[in-house]
Amino acid sequence: MSVKAVALYTFLSENKEEINIQENEELTIFDENSVDGWYLGENSRGERGLFPKTYVEIVRTRSNSNVTDCSISPEGSLGNDSPYFSSTPNTSGQINDEDYYDDWDDWDDGSTVVDDDHIRSPGANGYAHQTPTSNNPNVHYRAKSVPGPDSMSSSRKGSMVGRNLNRFSSFVRSGVEAFVLGDVPMMAKIAESYTIEMGPLGPKWKENPNPFICSIEDPTKQTKFKGIKTYISYRVTPSHTGRPVYRRYKHFDWLYNRLLHKFTVISVPHLPEKQATGRFEEDFIEKRKRRLILWMNHMTSHPVLSQYEGFEHFLMCADDKQWKLGKRRAEKDEMVGAHFMLTLQIPNEHQDLQDVEERVDNFKTFAKKMDDSVMQLTNVASELVRKHLGGFRKEFQRLGNAFQSISQAFMLDPPHRSDGLNNAISHTGRTYENIGEMFAEQPKNDLFHMLDKLSLYQGLLGNFPDIIHLQKGAFAKVKESQRMSDEGKMDQGEADGIRKRCRTVGFALQAEMSHFHERREVDFKDMMQAYLREQIAFYQRVVQQLERTLRTYDSL
Amino acid sequence: MSVKAVALYTFLSENKEEINIQENEELTIFDENSVDGWYLGENSRGERGLFPKTYVEIVRTRSNSNVTDCSISPEGSLGNDSPYFSSTPNTSGQINDEDYYDDWDDWDDGSTVVDDDHIRSPGANGYAHQTPTSNNPNVHYRAKSVPGPDSMSSSRKGSMVGRNLNRFSSFVRSGVEAFVLGDVPMMAKIAESYTIEMGPLGPKWKENPNPFICSIEDPTKQTKFKGIKTYISYRVTPSHTGRPVYRRYKHFDWLYNRLLHKFTVISVPHLPEKQATGRFEEDFIEKRKRRLILWMNHMTSHPVLSQYEGFEHFLMCADDKQWKLGKRRAEKDEMVGAHFMLTLQIPNEHQDLQDVEERVDNFKTFAKKMDDSVMQLTNVASELVRKHLGGFRKEFQRLGNAFQSISQAFMLDPPHRSDGLNNAISHTGRTYENIGEMFAEQPKNDLFHMLDKLSLYQGLLGNFPDIIHLQKGAFAKVKESQRMSDEGKMDQGEADGIRKRCRTVGFALQAEMSHFHERREVDFKDMMQAYLREQIAFYQRVVQQLERTLRTYDSL
Repeated sequence: MSVKAVALYTFLSENKEEINIQENEELTIFDENSVDGWYLGENSRGERGLFPKTYVEIVRTRSNSNVTDCSISPEGSLGNDSPYFSSTPNTSGQINDEDYYDDWDDWDDGSTVVDDDHIRSPGANGYAHQTPTSNNPNVHYRAKSVPGPDSMSSSRKGSMVGRNLNRFSSFVRSGVEAFVLGDVPMMAKIAESYTIEMGPLGPKWKENPNPFICSIEDPTKQTKFKGIKTYISYRVTPSHTGRPVYRRYKHFDWLYNRLLHKFTVISVPHLPEKQATGRFEEDFIEKRKRRLILWMNHMTSHPVLSQYEGFEHFLMCADDKQWKLGKRRAEKDEMVGAHFMLTLQIPNEHQDLQDVEERVDNFKTFAKKMDDSVMQLTNVASELVRKHLGGFRKEFQRLGNAFQSISQAFMLDPPHRSDGLNNAISHTGRTYENIGEMFAEQPKNDLFHMLDKLSLYQGLLGNFPDIIHLQKGAFAKVKESQRMSDEGKMDQGEADGIRKRCRTVGFALQAEMSHFHERREVDFKDMMQAYLREQIAFYQRVVQQLERTLRTYDSL
Repeated sequence: MSVKAVALYTFLSENKEEINIQENEELTIFDENSVDGWYLGENSRGERGLFPKTYVEIVRTRSNSNVTDCSISPEGSLGNDSPYFSSTPNTSGQINDEDYYDDWDDWDDGSTVVDDDHIRSPGANGYAHQTPTSNNPNVHYRAKSVPGPDSMSSSRKGSMVGRNLNRFSSFVRSGVEAFVLGDVPMMAKIAESYTIEMGPLGPKWKENPNPFICSIEDPTKQTKFKGIKTYISYRVTPSHTGRPVYRRYKHFDWLYNRLLHKFTVISVPHLPEKQATGRFEEDFIEKRKRRLILWMNHMTSHPVLSQYEGFEHFLMCADDKQWKLGKRRAEKDEMVGAHFMLTLQIPNEHQDLQDVEERVDNFKTFAKKMDDSVMQLTNVASELVRKHLGGFRKEFQRLGNAFQSISQAFMLDPPHRSDGLNNAISHTGRTYENIGEMFAEQPKNDLFHMLDKLSLYQGLLGNFPDIIHLQKGAFAKVKESQRMSDEGKMDQGEADGIRKRCRTVGFALQAEMSHFHERREVDFKDMMQAYLREQIAFYQRVVQQLERTLRTYDSL
């Protein structure tokens, strides 16, 4: 069924199957289901062809609010971390998430996404080109977003500061292009404000003036609809209120999608993975709890994310009716995507754009290498877990069994039984069987925690290629506009505006890079220390077991 | 070429291809190469057929000494532990071993026997029926000796106390049958004497009145024939002289074969295995040295073996000419095989034969189970060695590499390098690489020693089925002779003589069983304690390494 739409921006066709559209032009879309982000439709001059989905807004006649289809894009049900949720510039309308979630009450349960972070091949996460065969929604998304010509090459073709034609460009989707080009109107009153200040190592987010932490405890199985539906509820207690609220995974997921929708240039931590089966098994519940805690720690540590109103609502609201009201308010937030950029206050310090570019390139190299090594460590640690549960346990248990068997043989010739020795050998056998069990249990104390943290960082690092792309796109616009201004094709005032807004993008990215470094330093130090402490405790316990066993031979 | 021979004992044919031979009858042997221990020949009555090789002695016309072919049986070159060397009753002639060994100067080198004690399948060693496909000469021999009807079933067929017709019976080969039946004449003067006394747990060998120990040290590569031949020489120092002698493996092997030749009912410890390749590699030399030391410890601990004149010669003779003389003297020793039984002094205590039988049966059950569990522990320990050198090392090194890689990533974004943390993580990486190496090195400290001892016990246990068979055979003779005496078919005096000599066999076997138990108690206690001590030291070193590493994070 064809629907009416309006062009939000001017788009100039580059290929024969595409058509030009003008800002504010009325359009007809033949099929509301976009293909790879493109609509097939007709412009007001009767030309038929493709134009980018993100450049238009569908006009709903049955409702007085404009609804974009982005929030329930086909990928919406695939991955909780799809940045498509924040892909529409100038989004003003919202779907009623309440209905969405009521229909998807078991979304958490029905997903077929399996936990495959332990089997991801190196080079995934968007840093390297790859065949997008992974089930990981993150990988799926990254694989799409990376290839293709970058904004510079395509924009050079136009005779004015053209818009990026990369169909999957995060620069376009996030609204940052629109922001840089000055297409996002300044609003009369902006309640929110996030400040970037100059720190000793460069721009950084101003700390949350009311810092807090938040515990997640006591996952408990709950039922509703007279026991038909079962879910896990977590007790969530923020330190600044001290009052617990109870949240399900779907509440976390709702919040997560709000974050993706709102926050441009910020690396939103991924939620722990969904799992198709075994969601009520103790190990899975434990793992999800541990990873929600890490997610929460990252949220509360982030100067911007921790101050988000929707997050506050999530942490504090204990009343059902208030919950729905707050939820709708968050969903109607206008300061999302491109508009979020308007909430940023940047320092006055001059930064040479070339320096910023270089700084970003360094970070990009670092993040690529860190992503690779986090992947490597994840693979090694996962394999070690498998070895602990399998090989190590088995070897020690087989040794234990063999000692037991020796002891049993020695009991068979009564006059020469030497019970003391037999008992000592039998004890040694049990000790090694026990050490085998200790090996199998040990990952719970060390490797699991390491894998939790690595998984969080895989998610954070996986966001950066797109975030870096924003700055690259903005920088290209500056260069292009300056050239055009030099050639007299653009008013210097417009070029200066583009340069000024590009500064905001650069500052924001640097602040986010800085925050990432700060956290990873704390997190990896903690991770390494915790691992070593648990390893020491483990081998000390082995030594104690063996010493106790050795003493049984002393009296013989 | 046919040769003349004389029958040493009467043999009654049981199958149509066999012929009867009478004691002292002159025989013609058509083919001097016996097939499975049987000669094809003709008796004085012109009957042609098979008779047992061990029942006859070939008459050499070109020499004034009778030479049996047993000492250089086809198996002679196959295995250093072949009991065929002691298989001829009433052996009086000897081959000149000097020439034999001169021809086989590189016997040690040229053997194709490989060290397969780590891959032996459970149930070998003669306790269970099996396909004799193993390369292990010991297994080869045991597999032959076990099957077939036992002496009781075959002897029942005869009308007198018949001789055992089991072609591979150790009872026959060892000369114990001949001894029990009174066919071994008492000699006028017997210089040697070994006493069995009653201990609290039953008969035992009287201790060597001059006990000593003996070190084996400093394996050194030597050459002769201007460097054409290379061999390893060991410094052998007995405690009672304190004077070192230098011995090669071939000297040990000569001694070992003398022991097999002489000592009936004693479990002679096997020499460490020969190896086809890599004999001059450090690991092999070390392993052979360790195992020669264990072999030597068992020799010096044994009240009978430690007093053997040939052993004394081996330990003390430092002069080349004296060496050859002593060697010939040992090779001309007449108190071997059946005659060795004459050197045993037994207590006067009455032992019920039924009780002895039961005691032996218990030991047999015990030895079978111990053999199985020694095999099991050998397999487990060998696999553990492989894991230490492979899997364990690899896992820890991969973990170390992954940490190093994280640290390298962290160095890539200069303003945020945090050198202290990077160095600590890099140090952690090196620590785990080092722990990987420690795992690979550890078997030298513990598992290798365990495997050495288990290998010694595999050899000792492998001897027992044949030794037990001796007592079984003797016991059957007693029962048979008593029945015949009861039926008036045998003089009671003759039956009493058989019973008396059977007592000697029983006492000797019990003394040997008792010695085995005594040693295995000491040896396994030592083995377990040494293993635990090394394991404790190992895990303590791991803890120390990790603690040192953890401290590098403290100052951050």
